[in-house]
Amino acid sequence: MENSSRVYLYDTTLRDGAQTQGVDFSAADKAKIARELDALGIDYIEGGWPGANPTDDTFFADPPKMTRSRLTAFGMTRRAGRSAANDPGLNALLAHPSLGAVTMVGKSWDFQVTVALGVELDENLRMIGESVAHLKPRVPEVMYDAEHFFDGYKRNPEYALKALRAAYDNGARWMVLCDTNGGSLPEDITRIVGEVVAAGIPGSHLGIHCHNDSENAVANSLAAVRAGVRQVQGTINGLGERCGNANLISIIPNLMLKMGFETNIAAADLKNLVRVSRALDEVLDRTPNRSQPYVGRSAFAHKGGLHVSAVAKDPSCYEHIDPALVGNARQIVVSDQAGRSNMVARMTDLGIEMEAVSRESLVRVVEQMQVSFDPREVTDLVDLVKRLEHEGYAYDTATASFELLVRRALGQVKRYFTLDRYRVIDERRRNAIGQWVTLSEATIKVEVGGSEYMEVGEGDGPVHAFDTALRKVLTGAYPQLAALELADYRVRIVESTAGTGARTRVTIESTDGKGNRWTTVGVHTNVLEASLEALQDSIAYMLYRFGEG
Amino acid sequence: MENSSRVYLYDTTLRDGAQTQGVDFSAADKAKIARELDALGIDYIEGGWPGANPTDDTFFADPPKMTRSRLTAFGMTRRAGRSAANDPGLNALLAHPSLGAVTMVGKSWDFQVTVALGVELDENLRMIGESVAHLKPRVPEVMYDAEHFFDGYKRNPEYALKALRAAYDNGARWMVLCDTNGGSLPEDITRIVGEVVAAGIPGSHLGIHCHNDSENAVANSLAAVRAGVRQVQGTINGLGERCGNANLISIIPNLMLKMGFETNIAAADLKNLVRVSRALDEVLDRTPNRSQPYVGRSAFAHKGGLHVSAVAKDPSCYEHIDPALVGNARQIVVSDQAGRSNMVARMTDLGIEMEAVSRESLVRVVEQMQVSFDPREVTDLVDLVKRLEHEGYAYDTATASFELLVRRALGQVKRYFTLDRYRVIDERRRNAIGQWVTLSEATIKVEVGGSEYMEVGEGDGPVHAFDTALRKVLTGAYPQLAALELADYRVRIVESTAGTGARTRVTIESTDGKGNRWTTVGVHTNVLEASLEALQDSIAYMLYRFGEG
Repeated sequence: MENSSRVYLYDTTLRDGAQTQGVDFSAADKAKIARELDALGIDYIEGGWPGANPTDDTFFADPPKMTRSRLTAFGMTRRAGRSAANDPGLNALLAHPSLGAVTMVGKSWDFQVTVALGVELDENLRMIGESVAHLKPRVPEVMYDAEHFFDGYKRNPEYALKALRAAYDNGARWMVLCDTNGGSLPEDITRIVGEVVAAGIPGSHLGIHCHNDSENAVANSLAAVRAGVRQVQGTINGLGERCGNANLISIIPNLMLKMGFETNIAAADLKNLVRVSRALDEVLDRTPNRSQPYVGRSAFAHKGGLHVSAVAKDPSCYEHIDPALVGNARQIVVSDQAGRSNMVARMTDLGIEMEAVSRESLVRVVEQMQVSFDPREVTDLVDLVKRLEHEGYAYDTATASFELLVRRALGQVKRYFTLDRYRVIDERRRNAIGQWVTLSEATIKVEVGGSEYMEVGEGDGPVHAFDTALRKVLTGAYPQLAALELADYRVRIVESTAGTGARTRVTIESTDGKGNRWTTVGVHTNVLEASLEALQDSIAYMLYRFGEG
Repeated sequence: MENSSRVYLYDTTLRDGAQTQGVDFSAADKAKIARELDALGIDYIEGGWPGANPTDDTFFADPPKMTRSRLTAFGMTRRAGRSAANDPGLNALLAHPSLGAVTMVGKSWDFQVTVALGVELDENLRMIGESVAHLKPRVPEVMYDAEHFFDGYKRNPEYALKALRAAYDNGARWMVLCDTNGGSLPEDITRIVGEVVAAGIPGSHLGIHCHNDSENAVANSLAAVRAGVRQVQGTINGLGERCGNANLISIIPNLMLKMGFETNIAAADLKNLVRVSRALDEVLDRTPNRSQPYVGRSAFAHKGGLHVSAVAKDPSCYEHIDPALVGNARQIVVSDQAGRSNMVARMTDLGIEMEAVSRESLVRVVEQMQVSFDPREVTDLVDLVKRLEHEGYAYDTATASFELLVRRALGQVKRYFTLDRYRVIDERRRNAIGQWVTLSEATIKVEVGGSEYMEVGEGDGPVHAFDTALRKVLTGAYPQLAALELADYRVRIVESTAGTGARTRVTIESTDGKGNRWTTVGVHTNVLEASLEALQDSIAYMLYRFGEG
């Protein structure tokens, strides 16, 4: 007896997700992501298409060891006019004995069969049936991926069902219904899945594969499960061609926390969702989407003053789930819009009373910064943050710079060092054998612990040269700075219309090699000055927050 | 007799969207967006909350003139224990005679009434009814925004309905059902809207307001319309607190192109959707989301080789709608993953045969670039693009740099200028009155039309100084370069773990003040070199593509 509330999860980040514009996984990237998915408890991990490209061959030649998942290979049904046994594509799928399952894509839309493939309709059905029959005894599980199923069914339901039946009758474990073009709406999915089940293909053998072209991929996937389907395909963070695939990171908690379904993931392990989502962003070197449902850093952020005071009274007032269930956390946002109650909440997190920060102390701190307003006009912390955000600072992300601002006003942050003057020279010229060489050299004057130091450093580019020189000075007094690494360095123009002469904001994310990460910000009309401000804040924050030695 | 297929659109980008982390509209920003929405044909534009903050007061004091939309103000029902006539909040809403409608938020969830507001349940109903009754004769339309309606209805349907009825019985034109916490699923919406209609509040007087916390905001909005609701609220691009509001840019084409509903937007005007979407990104200085349904630059991009050859045969094979309907366009992507057939398609767009580009010509072009592989190893264009993407180049976006690469191989692009050596000095020191000043100065040697020029320029930061010097040289020969503007300048580290010493990619978006935009890319371990490569490509592309004089 099957457990009718058990839904099987199938991840195709490494195959369909790899189709995304700008994405190019290496075999090592794929192995890293597969290990995350295995640890999470995804049932099937589609690793790629053996024989289609060198990366996928490398990946399948030495696949990561799976503990909870079935590693799955993707391929195509046999070609027209060829026997399944002699099809090189099918044989490539059989070359990897460690596979847990094989998925073969085939056509179910008559128009596609005749126009895109140029194949007789009956031959296409034989291609499906014979391919499944050939693989069935040779691999643990065979699936049929019914490309364009919904578009095909809308035009010719009879033929689309015949294609499914060719796979089902030959023993395919799953028939996967694909909304390949992503244009279907939930009512289409509900109706068509219902008709497929009524036609005799049980939901326990049906999968759903949606794309997000109408912004309904998650809803369509859930609608299919409601209609009886028991395998859901998707990708981490909805990665995928065009508008993306269905986002498993949203589907999983919707199924488990809201709809009462079970998966291979224990409820307690849902807290790994944030980690898995971030792991993909790391591999792709992408900035995580702050507003991503469930796992985004803003997903449980409260900014509006009205909301914030209500959340303080009872979180369920403004949160659809407890953020801890998916590994996320509540966030109170510092911003102009927020008003005083948010700022109070943020300060409470820092353990600081608003009243402790005097106007005079803020004026003193701002006098050290290079801002375009008169520091003496500042009335209080809310007013100051508003003014600095107007200058281009963004404390929503650069929480370390915000904390430094407040703690400097309170006199809690030492002046670890003071940068005096500097000169950075970037030069390109030909070397003795006629090759172009570019080198940056920074000369800086810095005061540390009452003594003045001049130092020079070289590097790739002005910021790097400056960083080299500064660390030469500082690691004497603060040896732990040797472990400081800049994990990300982003530059953007704050007023986008004025080009390189406009004001730029530099955001630096730093790590200390011990798992700590912090973000700092600098703003200036000069991109180098902005970089140096963010860099100096990063160093100061590391020394303040994680101790001087 | 009402037209039952007419759906009213209500945009709240300027009010609820303004709650988004990192968003801070000025009154001028608001006016600009409102004009776009009015031109599109949105029925109601919620401009903000008069009396809540200085920006909204400025906006409503001198609102943009509406031609097709009703400018709407947001506010709150009267406070407890006060008469509607003497409530300062309500009076603030009446202070603006040009308003087309007023929306008042109130509570419908008993728990919120007693816990968040601390008000008697009956008094809350009187607050709703009396506020509507007071405003009804004084403004053209009154709406009741039923905050937390779905969460409230799930716990206490009777009370939630009473709140709606208090508004309806007193003449509110619309009762807006809000899924404030964004956690509802489509089946919840379908069931509850059905019950509300069955309880006697007609769908022609009901609105829906969804948030995207379960990634179902669009589906939930559509489900509500299916269940009878005839007003849909949302924001441009789904802007909004936490995970965003329902995205009108997806909802509108779903309603009109797929579900057969009518709005105030003519079918032919749907092609403005891309423009409206981009207009908001411009105001927010955000990079448009490439994978946004309908309007993203990748929404109709084809990368997988299999797809591309099918699209060439018949676009409906892989496109859910004709991209031109919403003002978008098909895109064939150049990338490693794509294989040969995509490259062929992209080259066809450029009007160039693959075979025309010889191996030798590619080697010659690459010898001019600073790459880490041996140019002589390059076998063909597909191989070269793959190698360059491995270096960090990203031609998915930088299509101008890709075109230059190919046309340079074909000898179609003149050497407009050749940069020889340069030296850039950034210096910070105190001026005569003790203030810090930072200045960058670039000295460059450039060959133009057989003559060598040395020039010096200063600017804010090294790239700006360099740009100044280079343009001083070039505008003599190419005066049209005076119109070149850098619209965006983005920097990112390609290998994120190695900090400022890692390889950096610089992407520059340029405009010529005549509506043309193009994107170029540079990659180098030195951020300045990468910037200069992208900058030189930008200049060369402008001269090649838009003429030399």
